[in-house]
Amino acid sequence: MTPITVVAVALDSIPIIKPGDPLVSIILEAVEESGFNLNEGDIFVISSKIVSKSEGRIVKACSIIPSREAKGIAERNGFDPTHVELALRESVEVISSKGVLITETHSGLICNFSGVDRSNAPDGEYVLLPKNPDQSAERILRDLRKETDLNLGVILVDSQGRPWRKGLVNVAIGCAGINAFKYNKGKPDLHGRILKRSTVCQIDELAAFAEPLMGQAGEGVPVVIIRGYEFADGSENAGDVNRPKEEDLFRQQTEKRGEWAQS
Amino acid sequence: MTPITVVAVALDSIPIIKPGDPLVSIILEAVEESGFNLNEGDIFVISSKIVSKSEGRIVKACSIIPSREAKGIAERNGFDPTHVELALRESVEVISSKGVLITETHSGLICNFSGVDRSNAPDGEYVLLPKNPDQSAERILRDLRKETDLNLGVILVDSQGRPWRKGLVNVAIGCAGINAFKYNKGKPDLHGRILKRSTVCQIDELAAFAEPLMGQAGEGVPVVIIRGYEFADGSENAGDVNRPKEEDLFRQQTEKRGEWAQS
Repeated sequence: MTPITVVAVALDSIPIIKPGDPLVSIILEAVEESGFNLNEGDIFVISSKIVSKSEGRIVKACSIIPSREAKGIAERNGFDPTHVELALRESVEVISSKGVLITETHSGLICNFSGVDRSNAPDGEYVLLPKNPDQSAERILRDLRKETDLNLGVILVDSQGRPWRKGLVNVAIGCAGINAFKYNKGKPDLHGRILKRSTVCQIDELAAFAEPLMGQAGEGVPVVIIRGYEFADGSENAGDVNRPKEEDLFRQQTEKRGEWAQS
Repeated sequence: MTPITVVAVALDSIPIIKPGDPLVSIILEAVEESGFNLNEGDIFVISSKIVSKSEGRIVKACSIIPSREAKGIAERNGFDPTHVELALRESVEVISSKGVLITETHSGLICNFSGVDRSNAPDGEYVLLPKNPDQSAERILRDLRKETDLNLGVILVDSQGRPWRKGLVNVAIGCAGINAFKYNKGKPDLHGRILKRSTVCQIDELAAFAEPLMGQAGEGVPVVIIRGYEFADGSENAGDVNRPKEEDLFRQQTEKRGEWAQS
């Protein structure tokens, strides 16, 4: 019997991306160069960094004047004021600025420094996350489909920390052609008991697996293709993974704290 | 040029595990049946549920009398009192019991209901997490090495929720033969800038990727073998992934809340 397998393939011949570069053409050239033949159902896991760069989401440090708020947060925590300023500009809310800078971005993602990052950025520059990662994923998928005539999935990824677990993991910040979740509700378990719930964030799991191939440093692997994973397409995107504020235990505490502090 | 690939292989001929079953022999029989030949460096990602079952970590609901505390939490949240009681017994601290039951287990893991679960458990029974998942992983690795004479990695996994992101993902609750983290500090990025930090939780990323093959229902795939991922062995295990209390922003809030409430 042939076992079920899933394969992840690293595309390591993608050059450094610059603003305005035609990302999909560059990715498809790298696919060709790798000798890998695309199939129906292949999933492109793409580092959000190259998407940001192609979209021109790069800021020169010298063009930024940090606000008083940014300077205050930077001083209290030993952070770079420019980095803090950019994180604040990219955010709608600061979740915590004590020893960390965790924010909610305009697209609803909760992450460190609004995902603003200096690694793999040109000297003296910062890379911001794509403005609307789900829209970016849709655009990439549309172009991939146009060029290949295949049904594919696209997941844009970024590495992030977790409140209760040490170390970064890749998560999905945008997706297209693949549903964010896989639903197990109603399926029987090994003993025939019907599962009442159990919703899995499949895009985060696929994102996580691509990281070991991508790396965080100069590995030069911004795209990983996953083959053999069966998935459904639907209306859900990565934005649907962000827990709404009213379900967020952490922020509920913060707000209650506020109430108590006032009373 | 041959692209770098990582392959995940599902072992789908493992029978339902009962207390006392020789887990490693059963897994190796399934490997043989699958026609897959083990190599140096293969990583066994194993559902903690079959480890628990083989270790007899199963409790009959009818043998449990819920405490007053458990009944209170169950009543306020519409939970099953027996499930709450077991979660409390398996915990050292309740992190939140408002709409959820998030606890810290004896082994330091922060999770829902201390990982106590009814899915894929025999009728009227609950499966607890392995008592010391890192030790279980070490034992499994030792037996695998004895039988195969290969250097392998072992990761025990469980699916868990996240504070800021919806949907479950697999995380590593035990490991052996593979370090928990991969360190990028000191590596140059694409532009030659040296990374100052960036520690990746590689065991969580490998755990996450195995889930799509394992499933949560009656798929009957409790073991996935990952091949092609290069890793270092070291002294770190999955227990080192648990963020210590003093770094836990969430609990810091809870405690501060307590202080304010008292003042």
